[in-house]
Order: sequence, then structure tokens, then C-alpha cells
Amino acid sequence: MKKLILLLCLLPLSAAASGPISWTEIFPGVWKGVAGEPEAYDLLRAAECEPFASALEGLERTPFPFAQTEVRAEVVDGKTYLRFPLRREEQVYGPGLNFQTVHQRGKILGLHVDHYGGRDNGRTHAPVPFYVSSAGYGVLVNSARYMTFYVGTAVRRDARDAPEARDRNTDPAWTSRPYSDAVEALVPANGVEFYVFSGGTPLGAVERYNLFCGGGTLPPRWGLGFTQRVEKLYDAAQVVAEAEEFERRGYPLDFIGLEPGWQSRAYPCTFEWDSGRFPDPAGLTRQLLHRGVRLNLWVNPYVSPDASIYDEILPHTGTHTVWCGIVPDLNDPEAVRIWTDRLRQGQVDIGVSGYKIDEVDGYDHYLWPDVARFPSGTSAEQMRQTYGVLAQKVTGRLYRQAGIRTFGLVRGSNAGAVSLPYVLYNDYYSHPDFITALVNSGFCGVLWTPEVRGSKTAEEWLRRFQSVVFSPMAMINAWSSGTKPWSFPEVAEQVKYYAELRMMLMPYFYSEFARYRFHGTPPFRSMALEPGFRSDPRTDTGSRDLEENPYLEAVTREIKDQYMAGGCLLVAPMFAGQESRTVLLPAGDWYDFYTGLYAGNGEEITVEPGLDRIPVFVRDGAVIPFIPPLLHAPGPGEKVDIEFRHYGRAGGSYLLYDDDGTTFAYEDGHYSWRTATVTRDARGELTGSLSPAEDGKPDTVGQVTFRFMTPAE
Amino acid sequence: MKKLILLLCLLPLSAAASGPISWTEIFPGVWKGVAGEPEAYDLLRAAECEPFASALEGLERTPFPFAQTEVRAEVVDGKTYLRFPLRREEQVYGPGLNFQTVHQRGKILGLHVDHYGGRDNGRTHAPVPFYVSSAGYGVLVNSARYMTFYVGTAVRRDARDAPEARDRNTDPAWTSRPYSDAVEALVPANGVEFYVFSGGTPLGAVERYNLFCGGGTLPPRWGLGFTQRVEKLYDAAQVVAEAEEFERRGYPLDFIGLEPGWQSRAYPCTFEWDSGRFPDPAGLTRQLLHRGVRLNLWVNPYVSPDASIYDEILPHTGTHTVWCGIVPDLNDPEAVRIWTDRLRQGQVDIGVSGYKIDEVDGYDHYLWPDVARFPSGTSAEQMRQTYGVLAQKVTGRLYRQAGIRTFGLVRGSNAGAVSLPYVLYNDYYSHPDFITALVNSGFCGVLWTPEVRGSKTAEEWLRRFQSVVFSPMAMINAWSSGTKPWSFPEVAEQVKYYAELRMMLMPYFYSEFARYRFHGTPPFRSMALEPGFRSDPRTDTGSRDLEENPYLEAVTREIKDQYMAGGCLLVAPMFAGQESRTVLLPAGDWYDFYTGLYAGNGEEITVEPGLDRIPVFVRDGAVIPFIPPLLHAPGPGEKVDIEFRHYGRAGGSYLLYDDDGTTFAYEDGHYSWRTATVTRDARGELTGSLSPAEDGKPDTVGQVTFRFMTPAE
Repeated sequence: MKKLILLLCLLPLSAAASGPISWTEIFPGVWKGVAGEPEAYDLLRAAECEPFASALEGLERTPFPFAQTEVRAEVVDGKTYLRFPLRREEQVYGPGLNFQTVHQRGKILGLHVDHYGGRDNGRTHAPVPFYVSSAGYGVLVNSARYMTFYVGTAVRRDARDAPEARDRNTDPAWTSRPYSDAVEALVPANGVEFYVFSGGTPLGAVERYNLFCGGGTLPPRWGLGFTQRVEKLYDAAQVVAEAEEFERRGYPLDFIGLEPGWQSRAYPCTFEWDSGRFPDPAGLTRQLLHRGVRLNLWVNPYVSPDASIYDEILPHTGTHTVWCGIVPDLNDPEAVRIWTDRLRQGQVDIGVSGYKIDEVDGYDHYLWPDVARFPSGTSAEQMRQTYGVLAQKVTGRLYRQAGIRTFGLVRGSNAGAVSLPYVLYNDYYSHPDFITALVNSGFCGVLWTPEVRGSKTAEEWLRRFQSVVFSPMAMINAWSSGTKPWSFPEVAEQVKYYAELRMMLMPYFYSEFARYRFHGTPPFRSMALEPGFRSDPRTDTGSRDLEENPYLEAVTREIKDQYMAGGCLLVAPMFAGQESRTVLLPAGDWYDFYTGLYAGNGEEITVEPGLDRIPVFVRDGAVIPFIPPLLHAPGPGEKVDIEFRHYGRAGGSYLLYDDDGTTFAYEDGHYSWRTATVTRDARGELTGSLSPAEDGKPDTVGQVTFRFMTPAE
Repeated sequence: MKKLILLLCLLPLSAAASGPISWTEIFPGVWKGVAGEPEAYDLLRAAECEPFASALEGLERTPFPFAQTEVRAEVVDGKTYLRFPLRREEQVYGPGLNFQTVHQRGKILGLHVDHYGGRDNGRTHAPVPFYVSSAGYGVLVNSARYMTFYVGTAVRRDARDAPEARDRNTDPAWTSRPYSDAVEALVPANGVEFYVFSGGTPLGAVERYNLFCGGGTLPPRWGLGFTQRVEKLYDAAQVVAEAEEFERRGYPLDFIGLEPGWQSRAYPCTFEWDSGRFPDPAGLTRQLLHRGVRLNLWVNPYVSPDASIYDEILPHTGTHTVWCGIVPDLNDPEAVRIWTDRLRQGQVDIGVSGYKIDEVDGYDHYLWPDVARFPSGTSAEQMRQTYGVLAQKVTGRLYRQAGIRTFGLVRGSNAGAVSLPYVLYNDYYSHPDFITALVNSGFCGVLWTPEVRGSKTAEEWLRRFQSVVFSPMAMINAWSSGTKPWSFPEVAEQVKYYAELRMMLMPYFYSEFARYRFHGTPPFRSMALEPGFRSDPRTDTGSRDLEENPYLEAVTREIKDQYMAGGCLLVAPMFAGQESRTVLLPAGDWYDFYTGLYAGNGEEITVEPGLDRIPVFVRDGAVIPFIPPLLHAPGPGEKVDIEFRHYGRAGGSYLLYDDDGTTFAYEDGHYSWRTATVTRDARGELTGSLSPAEDGKPDTVGQVTFRFMTPAE
């Protein structure tokens, strides 16, 4: 019978089924489309995210962004071919976390979880198959297969809006990349489900996607403090000494990351403390917590033959090994139980605050091949596309079960992981590309840290440090370099200034993350999501030398080195070697973050900030909460004074979020939003006030002051 | 019913069938294995090559190179997983035409026809799925799908010869790439056929593969002369002037290539002469042939809306366009008829000698996407993998029908194209990588030219020129640069010396190509195929700086800049900027090509040849035929004097091939092999003789002399 079915199968595989797409509006402005027979396993099922239904249901109804009949699907030869329309003027952001480019129209992206290899080709740590259009909608294709997206590249013979053939011999307007009126996608499966998010604006589309995936993650307050990862073979005494030195020198520190050497063996891992370097882990954790410092532990999920769990987990692992370690099948409940029990006992249960989950991305030479098999039946390809998400999910659950929030690091992610408490990082180290990744992270529901490791010069060190404090995780990763914030004495004070600034901005970033959680608004995001920003890239003629550029490829210049850190701050990092840079301001008046002075309006300005400053700009009327520069995040219920700084001429307000900072009580309503308002009276005087805390709601605000940063005219 | 079958299909697709492989020995030392249900379309069927059965049947029986049970196949989830064993000491060459590395063990190659993008990752002009082992066998996987080969990278949990897990924290012997005992391949199809070639030696395996694919191509004699491609908008008068100038200056010239501007429109193409630039193509062709110069025409296969064939071919083209041109389905007989008729009329039939078929490789942005469809039912993927082969096949047939040989250029190829009369080239331009491609071409049944285009300096110009004359096609491609052999006056004489040397070596290269045709011996090949060559790569520790090299990746140093040009000449190119280089000589005595002096034996030597010379070495006892430096290849039946040069101390011989040089009469036995023998008599005197021509066989040998290059001791 099996043989018969196999034979029967050969027919339909080469035949095409161009069936109708079944569309359902599942939330206001969110449509689900189904073509063919979607697979049982996909990205959203891997993440097990639940839509934040109450938030979505409260949103305005928006129209489907184009005629539904313009979306086409065919199932051919065991694959699904999808097509979505594009108009001439549209820009496309995503799919995938890209590192060198923001605008993806004209790209072909083969989405594949991988270490970033230096080219925006779809192989990346988070190849989220979600793209956002400048026309105010987004599209998610929910498959855990390796998909290829042709983003306005392929030109059909019967294109409705076709480019004109030109003679290259004589026509200077000939182009190697003619205009295409569609996004096409190849899904290697007999069917797929996909979603269209109509948001009114690009930001609105992203917010709906994020809410659909459950809303953003809300870190514990300490997660927004400063973190130092120590050298890989540090022992307990060195770790304590490190915490002490931060305190003695007056540098903030909220958590320390231990690298591979906390384990008895690593690459592959035992997930057990090395008893020589760490004779009393519980004592160490207690001692550090007493100083206000938490621990984060590095792991990769590959199990060493010397691990105590090896024999038990063996039947629940894949056919292939990673560095000779066996690979837990994270879709096999037994594998998950065995692995996470191992992490719970003696780690989470003694107060370890989180994990850094390495090597769940790639690259191909290190991970299992696509011919590997897993006991759960998940294919090697699907496992590769979702392993980072699964690892986030199952370790995240450990903390949820313990009733406390975590905030960790991970190197692989995908669609659906929006609400999982992890920040992406990698081994790549281009500072400009790290910033472009931060820009792009906001398009696809992931968080990214441009971590600081080593630096060749004090200038580079400071420049990198200045930008990491305007990111989801303010981190030095000294696993190899051993560098400390003060390692370059000539800039140690400037580094301290920015470490302190990070702490002062804690209520701001915490509130911005709450907006991520409750409204889906990405806390770090591209200028293209900002109203009033001219986001079209410029296309310059490339080299006309046919030896160098035989196809006369044009060069795209786009804004990829400035971004929004929350809704108020426009950050324009400086890179080592730069003395000045241009910044493109959106429409409206913008002011200098440090001085409150007018900077410009909807224009390109050139700034020369000197080494001490990273350029930051604030929109007219913005109100930003600051606390004093604490060395550690405030604990639950700890009251802290707030200074609200107001910028510009216009009145404005800020919604300040508050909760206990560590538990999930906010999910049961134990949180508050308070409004800080600045108004301008008839005489032009500015005054500020903060709305009172509601009865029975968290209130950690101490004394409140207002400061008006922009000098009167 | 269709729906029912579709539903039934879902079951077997996710089930695994680990069926037995059916093996058949089809020729001595050639086995065919079948797993699952192979597809109807594959690489060998696309090429329509017929094994050179009589040659294969005459070969010695060799044993299967390992236990047949060590080859494993599983059909899982619509894909076939293959596994072949590797022993610790084995080296692997191929699969695919690689540009930067020779040894592929430890690589993952995603075989995909593409423009070479600067990394040996499987995307290349000829991703031939054939690899050769240093243990003397080869493996071909005959699928036109995008396959992934894990060449000794993936380590199975149950590996028979498994590496040991190590602790990276403390064990300096830890490696990021543990040893693997298998080649695994992912074939995205429900089954596949594959072949094992047992050759005794690596060269023997390659020869069997080449014979299995029909034997190598035998170019017309003129194809081994010199060729110049002129600027893209040249007109007929300029072409004639070019031919005249070569003659006046005394530089050899056998054919001129016309670039896009011969056509009325290009990119996409009309395949019609531009009547302004070329008012009388037949007259031009006649005029050039009269001067001993032939014409080769550039095309890409994409049809312009202005082409006269557009309307007729339209129904026989794919769904997507390339530069707004429609894409002939070269598996649709009507498309082939319409296209090749267009090339025949007014081109082949007026004496055009061949084509340069551009853009049949990629890259992805230019060609059809993988969601394209073709009337023949060939998938976009299969079409991409075979389009270059199909274009070679159908244009090659034009000449076969005309009864004359051609020798053209093409940018995409694959398995099975061994006997097709084309040489690969590309737009990439690294001189060292061009040489490595030449080295690797001999592993996979393709020919490659390191064409010379422009150069920044006279030194670079001469260095590139010196190596292209030791390649399958001695070519300057001046389509953009307009460069001539004499463009750098300071090296114009040295360039002429090497152009003349190319002509002098014509009987040598012609005989070496005849060995390719009749015995499958690649005329240009890696040292690894040479007996007595130590081919193991050295592995050096990479950087120990974890910031730069976090996984402590080692660096492989291998011999990839020297090669064999025929069986007698070891060529070691110099690259611009080099004043000296090392050359690794195989075991046995080797002599300098120019002086006949002893050079070394099985050792690494350092040479400082000066700018005038490319280092070339000759094995002891070699006998090499030279003719005078003609300006054009001898015509059919034209007798030419031959000087046989002997090198070294030992006696030796050379098998000289002869035929009419232009037709296929050799296939009916109209050819001869004659033996030039040098013997050393009792007194140590060397004497030479040439065996007489057989009655009724071709004989173009004029006066014969022998020259003993190595001075007496």
C-alpha cells in the first residue's frame, strides 16, 4: 500500500494546483490566507505564541491593502509559489534581520537561520519571513522551511505593470535590474498559511504583527541596567572581585555573564558547574545578589558525553552531533524536560537570572546537516529554522514557572518570538553593521544588541560604548578580551558618563518596553517607521567602467546609521575615524539631547560632536523621565526620584509605566501608566505635572521635578 | 481524484523509506546505484550524452572502492539523503568547479549554477555533482536539483569512526571541525541515480567519468589558435582592420569574437545582424575566412520583443523574463527549432564558426526566479541547473548538422557536458583564482579559460597572457577595454613570443585534446591527478585571537597555483607583483621547459624567472611536438614541419594525433596516432624517430626533426 501511495504521489507532485486562497480576517486589519495544505509544523506553532487578542481587538479596522485577488498562490511540484503585488513607489523593509541594508526592494533573500556571513542574502540570525511596506502593511509567511523571497526582482512575462525592454548597445537608460511589480516567494511545501497586517502606517503594521505574536517582551528592570560578561575561565573569586571593582570604581552593574568556563566541560556542554572554579555556586549567587548583581550563564544546547544527562537524553536527540555533542530534539517533550530540569536544579533555583544561548544559529559547518533526523519528526531544516525559538521558549518557561522575569541572550530567532525574553547578538563585529541590525530589528519583532567586545583604540571603544547604551542590552562581552569599561583610561570618564546615562534613562526605556509589550511598538526602530521621515533611498549610477561593473549595477544609498531609541530619541552613532556625520531629521522641530538647543527640521544636518558625545536628538515637545545614576536597577517597590526633561517649544506629555519590575504580576493588571504633561500657558511659560498613581497600583516614583531643556527665546 | 491523490500524498512525504540501493555494474569499474524513484529529468538526460562504450569496455576491471553496503540512501519527506564513506586519509576533489580551493574535504557545497561570487560554496558556473577521491574513485549524483554535499563535515551520532568530544575550556586539541567519516548529500527529490567510478588512480576515475559522458570534446585545430574579442560596438570595417593589424604586426589570430553590438538589439537579443554596423555579414565572413580568420558571435538566449522570432517563440518560453527578454524553453523542441533556425540562417550558414553563450549561469537577480514555470514542465530549478548544458547541446548540434566542428564559449555547464564543444569563462577577474579554476576544471569534465581582458599594468598584462596560452582557449576579451596584444608596448614582444609559442605547441595541444576525446584524459588538470605528487594540504593553526577567530578555525594551505597542461608540461604561473615563487615538483626528474636544464625531483623549488618567462617544467624523457609559429592554424591536409623536443636523460615517446582538423570524419576512423620515440643507445647518444603514417590515414606532418633540450652531462 505504501508503495502504491508513493507511486500515486509522483503525479500530483509535478502537476500544479492553482487553487483559490482562503482568506479570513482574524483581527481588525489582520488577515490569514491559506494556500494548498499547510504543514503541521510552522514558525508560529514552534513559538507557541498566542495573539494578544484584547489589544488587537481594540484596534481600528483598516482595509485590506490591495485587491485580495492580487495575491496569487500555486502549488507546483511539492512547492508553493506565492505572489504579492507591489506598486512603483513602494519601499520594502525586511524580510529578515539584515545587517547592511534597510531597503530590501530589489533583493533576493533565501531565508535561513545562520550566523551572519557579511552579506544581506537571507542568511541571518533571525530570517523572519515578515516584510513591511512603506504603504502601511506587512506580510508574514508562516513556514519553517527555507524560503526564498524575490522582493521586487523577478519580472513576469505577463506582468501587469511591466518594464520596457531596452537595447543595451545604444540606450543609456538600460538597466540590469528592471522594475518588478511583485514580491514572489518560494515555499518548499505543499501549502502554507500567510498573514497580511494592514496598519495604516508601516509602524502600525509592525505593531499589529508584534501584537499578533503576543506583544513584545517586557524585561525585568535590572535587564535594562548594565551587564559585563567576564573572561571564559574566570573562577568564583574573580567574579566577586569583578563585581566589587565595578562598585569601587562607581560603574553601574546589574548582571555578570559567565562564559563557557562555568561548566565542567563545554563545546559540547555538561550544563554543570565546574567544581574547581565554582565550588559553591549557590553561595556565589547569594553573595552577588546581596551586592545587587545577578548572574547569566552561557550555554549551547549540545550535550557532552560527560554530562550527567547524556544517557537519559540520548534517545531524544538527533542523528548528528555538534562538536561531538548530541543535539536535544526540542520538539520532544522528554528532551525538553531533561534539559530544562538540568538548568533548573542548581542554576535557576539558586537565583541564576538568565542564559546566553549560543550556537543555535549556525553556521552550517558546526550545526547538524540538512540530512539529520530528529525523533519528533521535525525535519533538520525546520529544526534549524526554529531551534533558537524553541530554546528561547523552553528556557523562558523555566522563569515563568518560577514567577520571575528573565532577560537573556540568544543567537538565533525567527517569527513568533516577539514575546520571548531574549536579545540577539553575534560574533560579527562591524560597528556600522551592528547599528544597521539595530535599525532593522524593529521591523521583525526581535531585539538586537551591538555588544562591545574589544577595541583597537580608545576612540573605537568609546564610540561602540556610546551606541550600546542606546540599545536593548547595554553590554560588554569580555569573554575573550577581558576588557573592562575603564580599560582605556583616556576615555574611562566618558564611558562612565554613558553607563550612568543608561541608568538615568531606565524609566524611559522601561516605559518604551512596556509600549512594546502592550502596544507592539518596537523600542528600537528604523527612521522609516517614524512619521515625517523621507525614507526613499537614492540610487546613484555605479562605476561606468565595464571591466569593474560589467552590468552597470547602480548603487543604493540609504539611511542606515541612525535610529529611534524609543519614541523620543533619535540616535546617530559615530564610528571610529569619523569626526563629523550627517543626520537626516524627520519633519518637525528637533532639539539636541544634551543642550536642548534647536537642531533642525526635516533636513539633513551635519554634526561634529567631538569624541565625548554620541549625537542624540529629541522631537519638539518630548518629555523624558530621568532617575539619578544608580549603580543597580531599583528593586521591587523601591521609590526613586524622577526628573522629567522637556525639549523644544511645544507642550507635550509622556506615558510613564510602572510595575514591580520583576514578576508577572503586571499580567494580572498590577501596573500603572501615569502621564507627565508639560503645557505652555498664555504667557509662554512651561509647566509640568505628573498624574497621580491609581489606588492599589504600583508606585515607585519618588520626588518629581521638571526641567525645561530648551532655553527660552 | 486529483484532490484525493494530493491528500494521499501527505502521508508518504513525511515517512521515510530506507530502501536498499539497487546496484548495476554498467561498464568495467562503473556502477550505477538507484535509490527511491529517480526523476524523469536529470543532468545526463539534459546533456543527452552517450557513454563512449567501446572505450569503456576496453578498460580493466577494477573493484568497487569500498563495501557497497557502506553507501546508504533514505527517502525522507520528499528528499533523498545519500551517504558515502570516507577514510581518514582520503582527500576529496570537487564537486563543482571551485575557484579558490582544490581540496574539498571539510566543505559544504550547495550545488547551484551561478556566477562565481567569490566563495567556494557550490555556487559556480559548473557545479558538477561529481567528486574524486585520492583513493582512486569518483562519485556522480545525477540530479538536476539544487543538491547539498556535506563533504566530510557532518558527524553522525552513530559514526563508525567517530571523533572524540573534547573540552574547549581546557583542551588545546579541541577543534571546531571534528573529523567526519562520510560524504552526505541531500537530493531534494523522491529518488536519484548515482554512479561510482573506480579508476585505480584519481586520474583513472576522472577518465572513466569523462568516457562515461561520451569522451572529451575535440576542438577544430583553429580552436587552439589565438582569439581576440573586439569592442562591443565595432563595425564590419573595424573588424577587418583588426584582422589586418594582427597580420601586419605578425601576431597570430585564428578567430575574432564579436560582442553584443553585432546584433540590432542586445540584452535581450534579436539574434539578427545590425544592418548599420554590419551591412554585409556574408561578405565580411568570406573576407575574414580568406585571411584565415573566423568569427565567433556573442549571444545570450533571451529574446527581445524586437526579434523577428519573438511572436513565434513566445508560447515556448518561461513565465518570467530576463532583462525583459523572454526565455526559450530549451526542453521544448519548438523553442529549440525556432531559436537555432534563427542562428543557422545568415550565421552558421554563412560561415560563422561558433558562439559565445553568455548569461546562462546567473546570477539570481538576472535570471528567472525559482518560481518560474516552463511549458515543457521542467522546473525553474532544473532549468537553471541545465540551461547552459542545453544551450551547448542545441547550438553544438547546428555544427554537427553542418558537418564541421565548433569551439565556443559558455558561462554555465554541468555534468554530462564533457563532449560539448565549449569552454567556460566568467566576469570575475582574479588571476590566481582563474588558475585555481583551471586546476579544478580537470576534475569535473569542463574546460576553463583564464581569459585576459584589461590590466592595470604591463606586468599584469604579460603575466595573464603567459598563463592564458597554457589553457584551452588563448583569448583576449577586449569587449570593454579594447586592449590588443600589443597595447602595452614595453611587453609587446614578450606577448608575441607567447602567442607564437601557443601556435608552435598546436600539435601538442591538439594531441592532448585527442587524448581527452578518446581516453577521457583532461588536457588541463590538477597536480593531484599526477603520479608522484604529494597532494595532502597542510593545515596551519589560524589566529589564536578569539576576537578575530572565535572558533579557532584552522587555515588550509594547498597547492592551487600550478597545474599540468597536457601530460608533459607543469605550468606554474606568476602573478603581478611576484618576483619569485615556489613550485612543488612530483617525484621523478624535472627539467626547465626553456633551457632543458635540470630543475628538481619530488621537491619544492623556488624560481625567479624574471618578467619574460612563465615557469614551465617538463618530466624526464618527455617528447613534445612543435611546429613553426604560424599566424593561423594549418588548414585541412596542410603539411607542417614538426620539431620534437626531448627533455632529460631518459628515453621516451609521444603519441601524435592527426586528422583533418575540422570535420567529424575522425569519428569514422579518419585519424591517426603516430609515435615519436627517443631512445638512448649504449653510448648514451639520444636518437629520435617518428613512426610512419598508416596508409589512407591523415598525414599532415612535413619535415621531422628532433632536438635534445637537455645538455649532455
